[in-house]
Amino acid sequence: MRVLVLGGDGFCGWPTSLYLSDRGHDVTICDNLSRRKIDIELEVESLTPIRTIGERLHTWREVSGRTIGFVNLDLATEYDRLVALLLELRPDAIVHFAEQRAAPYSMRSAATKRYTVDNNVRATHNLLTALVETRVDAAIAHLGTMGVYGYGWSGSAPIPEGYLTVKVPTPDGDLEREILHPANPGSVYHMTKTLDQLLFAFYAKNDGLRITDLHQGIVWGTQTDQTARDERLINRFDYDGDYGTVLNRFLMQAAIGHPLTVHGTGGQTRAFIHIKDTVRCVEIALKNPPAAGDKPMVLNQMTETHRVIDLAKLISDTTGADVAYLPNPRREAEENELIVRNDQFLALGLDPTTLSQGLLAECTDIATRYMRRADLTKIVSRSVWRAGMETSGDLMTELPEA
Amino acid sequence: MRVLVLGGDGFCGWPTSLYLSDRGHDVTICDNLSRRKIDIELEVESLTPIRTIGERLHTWREVSGRTIGFVNLDLATEYDRLVALLLELRPDAIVHFAEQRAAPYSMRSAATKRYTVDNNVRATHNLLTALVETRVDAAIAHLGTMGVYGYGWSGSAPIPEGYLTVKVPTPDGDLEREILHPANPGSVYHMTKTLDQLLFAFYAKNDGLRITDLHQGIVWGTQTDQTARDERLINRFDYDGDYGTVLNRFLMQAAIGHPLTVHGTGGQTRAFIHIKDTVRCVEIALKNPPAAGDKPMVLNQMTETHRVIDLAKLISDTTGADVAYLPNPRREAEENELIVRNDQFLALGLDPTTLSQGLLAECTDIATRYMRRADLTKIVSRSVWRAGMETSGDLMTELPEA
Repeated sequence: MRVLVLGGDGFCGWPTSLYLSDRGHDVTICDNLSRRKIDIELEVESLTPIRTIGERLHTWREVSGRTIGFVNLDLATEYDRLVALLLELRPDAIVHFAEQRAAPYSMRSAATKRYTVDNNVRATHNLLTALVETRVDAAIAHLGTMGVYGYGWSGSAPIPEGYLTVKVPTPDGDLEREILHPANPGSVYHMTKTLDQLLFAFYAKNDGLRITDLHQGIVWGTQTDQTARDERLINRFDYDGDYGTVLNRFLMQAAIGHPLTVHGTGGQTRAFIHIKDTVRCVEIALKNPPAAGDKPMVLNQMTETHRVIDLAKLISDTTGADVAYLPNPRREAEENELIVRNDQFLALGLDPTTLSQGLLAECTDIATRYMRRADLTKIVSRSVWRAGMETSGDLMTELPEA
Repeated sequence: MRVLVLGGDGFCGWPTSLYLSDRGHDVTICDNLSRRKIDIELEVESLTPIRTIGERLHTWREVSGRTIGFVNLDLATEYDRLVALLLELRPDAIVHFAEQRAAPYSMRSAATKRYTVDNNVRATHNLLTALVETRVDAAIAHLGTMGVYGYGWSGSAPIPEGYLTVKVPTPDGDLEREILHPANPGSVYHMTKTLDQLLFAFYAKNDGLRITDLHQGIVWGTQTDQTARDERLINRFDYDGDYGTVLNRFLMQAAIGHPLTVHGTGGQTRAFIHIKDTVRCVEIALKNPPAAGDKPMVLNQMTETHRVIDLAKLISDTTGADVAYLPNPRREAEENELIVRNDQFLALGLDPTTLSQGLLAECTDIATRYMRRADLTKIVSRSVWRAGMETSGDLMTELPEA
């Protein structure tokens, strides 16, 4: 398959690009390197020393003998170049990761709220419009989020795969109707993914575009079989309060002797997936697109659910790390249940990778290897959901002696 | 009340601004004059000779003794000026009309699709972000559309006021849940209003913004008591295939002896409201905002429903005009039922203006007075929902002798 990976330099995009290339697909990455630029803005770096995209691609050629193309293009603002690229490449499939993906960053300031909405909505809409205009018949697999559903909305009922069958009361009795699961986003970032869903529904209906929306859980882990082949291929590891995500942050914190930062009670239950499964899921989705005329296919890209506090305790038990309860900068329920359906992925052949000591240790090893690169002032989450909400000071000021 | 009217130079915005000023409110219009610029792009003009915004405001001062402020500002791109304006004016209420509002225009080309999404989403989101950032506590009344609900989705059940109570099946029996009515937009334009709804829901929940969304039907008529006071205050009258709307177009067509253009079977049932009621509804909404912390209030701003073919027959019977059945450039159901709830507006005091010979005649009179300004090549709707759909040629090449 000729695959165009939009956002192929990011945390999920890079390992996905390598995996697809390794599996024999003809991959081109399109990325404006915005994630690296946001690092500069936040004055933080990936814990792992990621190389330039040029060196990454050169290394991959050296290691695998395979070539991945690269185009530096801003999907949100360079529409004409996108059209030209689609006409030149005529991809069979497009993976769309090209959105600002951190909830805390999206809530930092008016500027980051606006950037998140402007960038994400325009990136997605430009892609859809360009496919209609060029008549390039590529299936899209888009990275959505489990966060579109919200948490606790349907009590103990499992979260379905995108669509919910409800009964609508009418004067003539109940009508059964299938609806897109009601949107309950918890941040501006999550909200943009609920906007994407409405764009997808319209363009699938009006123009017959073939779209799969992957509602992904929280990704953990760093390396895949491909990124581990050479240090120069190493994937990002975000540990900071904006871009770092909960399980990876705990593992990094344990590695450097920092208390595990639980914001709120830790009663939040969330869905998780290992990065090695992310890349597999994307290929499965690309190989099983919906037909033209179908509504968007929605797959819940996750393999297990955990309460935050249970993860903290697990890691604390294994490593001896303390647990610190910090004020929650988010406005969210203190606790929730979460049961999620992923039947379609299982039926399509996904063999889930779940939490194991081996994988946790792999992550801790990486964090330990690069711990000297950590900036301790970046660990506590301080992007608040409303002005004036309380935040914590730093919990640790020096790394342990080498 | 200090009221800021965003988009106050347009078809609904201008008469609303005059009405609110006449009712004693302190009105400032903010508009980038985009509607006039789109006229230039489409090579068409309002049938009525509208004056510059400067002459309009000067005339209003002369006629009423009241001053309306004006700021030329692009809400979608001039965020910092918006923030400064809010801090300077500190409005009690904001009416938000500042979106591209024609479905056919939104489907004309990749460029107009992109403009509609980029402009509408950013205009709305910038407003919300600016209110959060400045902490200006203004209630918002936003012009939405009945088109967010779609047509025929719930059979013969009435369209509720924004929210629908459904039963969600769970292992423990049905859960009753109130949801935003599922979005079923029929065009890119309508889709942007479904995106607005999700923005409103989030900012009401996270930041306590007070928002009323007015799901308006198709507006007909031209003049209000205020715009009729002086010819220089006259409102727009759009008759072209992109911006003209069905009932006004029929009245104009009858006035010039053009066949009434029914696209498709005419079995489409739509909701209508007279412009005189639009302006009243907006004031009612401003005077009855939701409380901080409430979900957005949704009001269906319409007074009656009609089948397109019934309107054509009514006008044909009165005027002797022919009815022409043309290919439908839209992708929509050939026919649908439509029953709409507007209980809240009635309870808040709206006394509906409905279809009457007097009001129809007033509209025909205006069309007749200015018929020499009509461009007959602009009447047939040719913006198609998918490339390659059939359209009709012109039905008339010369105006009748004077």
